[in-house]
Amino acid sequence: MAVPALVFDVFGTLVDWRSGIARAFDESKVSGDPEELADAWRASFWPMLVAVNKGERPWGNFDELHAAALSNLLTERDMDLPAVERARLVDAWHRLDPWPDVRTGLATLRRQRVVASLSNGHVALLVDLARHGDMRFDCLLSAELARTYKPAPEVYLLAPRLLDLEPAEVMLVASHPLDLKAARRAGLRSALVERPLEYGAGSPARADPDADLSVRDLDELAQRLLD
Amino acid sequence: MAVPALVFDVFGTLVDWRSGIARAFDESKVSGDPEELADAWRASFWPMLVAVNKGERPWGNFDELHAAALSNLLTERDMDLPAVERARLVDAWHRLDPWPDVRTGLATLRRQRVVASLSNGHVALLVDLARHGDMRFDCLLSAELARTYKPAPEVYLLAPRLLDLEPAEVMLVASHPLDLKAARRAGLRSALVERPLEYGAGSPARADPDADLSVRDLDELAQRLLD
Repeated sequence: MAVPALVFDVFGTLVDWRSGIARAFDESKVSGDPEELADAWRASFWPMLVAVNKGERPWGNFDELHAAALSNLLTERDMDLPAVERARLVDAWHRLDPWPDVRTGLATLRRQRVVASLSNGHVALLVDLARHGDMRFDCLLSAELARTYKPAPEVYLLAPRLLDLEPAEVMLVASHPLDLKAARRAGLRSALVERPLEYGAGSPARADPDADLSVRDLDELAQRLLD
Repeated sequence: MAVPALVFDVFGTLVDWRSGIARAFDESKVSGDPEELADAWRASFWPMLVAVNKGERPWGNFDELHAAALSNLLTERDMDLPAVERARLVDAWHRLDPWPDVRTGLATLRRQRVVASLSNGHVALLVDLARHGDMRFDCLLSAELARTYKPAPEVYLLAPRLLDLEPAEVMLVASHPLDLKAARRAGLRSALVERPLEYGAGSPARADPDADLSVRDLDELAQRLLD
């Protein structure tokens, strides 16, 4: 398949946010099940991206929205937490580990393809994650550059525009069917990577019959795509 | 010096554009001294960036402006060249070699600092150059993201904004005093790297008494900056 460039969703697709955030809760003064807290934080964060895209909320980067969502979560549960502890939790999103296949998988793919992020996370956050996990990208593309969030088409169209390619020459690799569907709507190709542990052992199974490829991990993606 | 991030000018500072472009002229059907042609092309290109910044010319990326400047150069000299040959010359700017210290110098600096480009070149061009020269950056910052060219302050301010730092926490490394001066005006720190061969053996000597540092190459920069 002649796709010169692969762009990757990051949270869930490349990095295991749930384990990292659960560990941060475990080390914090917040009482409760750390994994349930991680899921609840992530769940309360999503509507904020939607609100930004609808113009109901001013632009905020992931640090700002994570802080606001954490604040809501603590209020709902009648908990309080000192500012320094809140900042430490928000900062945990900068030090999430990649899934085991990611570092070497990206390196293999990069030998024959341009490899970039295409994440809702802001650039500084992606820099920290790439350094933390030693993930090598050719460049970091972020929704921050469009000042709107996926699934808005402007974010997907950043990739062909900045890489000087046609939309059909760029493939989004992601573990979320909604992300892949929006990428296709913008004219990109799409590959589903299964991440059966994104939400822990009980993660919902995902499938995307419309994706160009469905793979278990980045090693399989390299086998399927490369010469 | 507590600068968490170093951003690098690319053409002249990291890559030897003159040798690469002279080689491309040498392999082309254009008659004349290849090095003189390279210098003349580069010289006729600069006023176009100025014209874009003044609003006298619509935004164009380096490929577009290189093609336009080449066309002017050929017309001035009463030469013609088929489109495929012109495209090959424009494409030579995507395959310029880094100076000998650059690949390892960037790798050393990247161990303790965030390392990014901050170039007037567009993102796709920077991707190609980084891949060609195996230069590892944490991210690619380009004037294309501000849709104006250095020395406009907006370009320098991309770096602290996207890296989530204060301007004084970012240092521009460049071989051109005008670039360093404009960076300082935007609040960044500045380091001059000598590139005595940028314009060949007869390159003008450069100095910048106002720069925070002046170094011979990236190895010396690493020695002076790192623990």
